[in-house]
Amino acid sequence: MCELLGMSANVPTDLCFSVAGFLRRGGATGPHRDGWGIAFYEDDGYREFRDPHPSIESPIARLICDYPIKSRIVISHIRQANVGAVNLGNTHPFSRELWGRHWSYAHNGQLDQSFATTLPLGLYHPTGTTDSEHAFCWLLDQIRQAFPEPPKEPRQLWDLIHQCCEQLRQMGVFNMLLSDAQYLYGFCSTKLVHITRRAPFGEARLMDMEMTIDFSGCTTEHDVVTVVATQPLTTNEAWTPFEAGELVIFQEGEVMGRRRSAGLGVI
Amino acid sequence: MCELLGMSANVPTDLCFSVAGFLRRGGATGPHRDGWGIAFYEDDGYREFRDPHPSIESPIARLICDYPIKSRIVISHIRQANVGAVNLGNTHPFSRELWGRHWSYAHNGQLDQSFATTLPLGLYHPTGTTDSEHAFCWLLDQIRQAFPEPPKEPRQLWDLIHQCCEQLRQMGVFNMLLSDAQYLYGFCSTKLVHITRRAPFGEARLMDMEMTIDFSGCTTEHDVVTVVATQPLTTNEAWTPFEAGELVIFQEGEVMGRRRSAGLGVI
Repeated sequence: MCELLGMSANVPTDLCFSVAGFLRRGGATGPHRDGWGIAFYEDDGYREFRDPHPSIESPIARLICDYPIKSRIVISHIRQANVGAVNLGNTHPFSRELWGRHWSYAHNGQLDQSFATTLPLGLYHPTGTTDSEHAFCWLLDQIRQAFPEPPKEPRQLWDLIHQCCEQLRQMGVFNMLLSDAQYLYGFCSTKLVHITRRAPFGEARLMDMEMTIDFSGCTTEHDVVTVVATQPLTTNEAWTPFEAGELVIFQEGEVMGRRRSAGLGVI
Repeated sequence: MCELLGMSANVPTDLCFSVAGFLRRGGATGPHRDGWGIAFYEDDGYREFRDPHPSIESPIARLICDYPIKSRIVISHIRQANVGAVNLGNTHPFSRELWGRHWSYAHNGQLDQSFATTLPLGLYHPTGTTDSEHAFCWLLDQIRQAFPEPPKEPRQLWDLIHQCCEQLRQMGVFNMLLSDAQYLYGFCSTKLVHITRRAPFGEARLMDMEMTIDFSGCTTEHDVVTVVATQPLTTNEAWTPFEAGELVIFQEGEVMGRRRSAGLGVI
């Protein structure tokens, strides 16, 4: 399997602390040695860094840990391959343009082998060979077909994304992070947690290396930062698990909406 | 204006030597301080690095100069902004997916202000505000409309790309590097040169910094590497200028085809 890391914040925020712990799992404290990647939505654009080597040995990973890139939305992924060879073309996150926006996506899990026939492709086509990228292309096609233009009411879009994720969850394990440059979407099939940090800020201690930070020293009282991850990154904070089948929509660090599996209600 | 750098090679080749000289022009030996980017087509995938800061001051640029990424096709760009603010979203190269392939593109020049109305958009939309990205989206739409699937005969595609480039050249200055993951396309409106290095390899001396390399020490007799640039990068080699209106198509370091302005013939 793989692991996911995401961030949504109301001010441009660097994720160096969390990334430092997360990337340790790519070969040191975790077995996810088959590549890693990270996408940043900065105030003025989008960029991503990907490397098919273990993050623990990657000079690009070292740069990302040391060079604070301040952004409002981040999606990162460390890979332990199942479907698709270990190579750059199969390294998450994947991205495509829709409505003049960069969409970025990373997946943890595995779909059953019928994915290629069950999920017909339209305008978007994978460049690699993973089930993950195929599912992303299919998902974007569903969105584009339903909304050739951005919907005026984002809740319609959230409903559609949840329906598609539920369909994908029926085909295997589908934990996902997705962004359309405005929202961060987290969908849980089996394993996903989140934490929101806001004033009064305290101290956090990483699980994967000896590192502690006092967030009160690098924030203002207005900052709100949510981190989403496959499993908690710190040992002294309470992370909230997603429900199976739950989509949570974040913006500026806050939960803007939730969609749960049928029977569990909708906020 | 800006400057372009491209490479086509028949073996995975690192471009560190040329990039080291080229990126000096982003604030040291040249005025192109408004961002820089580089795209690599490696054997197993595509990735790009972009930074809206001067390359001469960029930690990511230092990494790229020191960390040999071996690829067969490279497109790089240093920016001196005219249309569009200096920010990450307006930093070349731009990329989109077509036919399950990454297409990458960088532009040097400026189109007249009518571009937004003269070049109607279809499926691809810019995420930034430059004339360059708008022209790229328009170009990909022309290709997609003409060839929903990759043409069996690539010469038809080359004809179309040349026709589109000629149309863009009528609207201002349009020097361009483009790749569809198979070929490197260079189109010259006013300024573009290229050089092909093959056995017997010799020594090259950079123009923009004190650096000399003896290629015979890091190549085999079968290697063929072509470098394309806005202006020569070395002082002791003969670079060949493109003609105005000429499209040259490179693959594996070799010239695979040329399209020239009407009246100048076609190879």
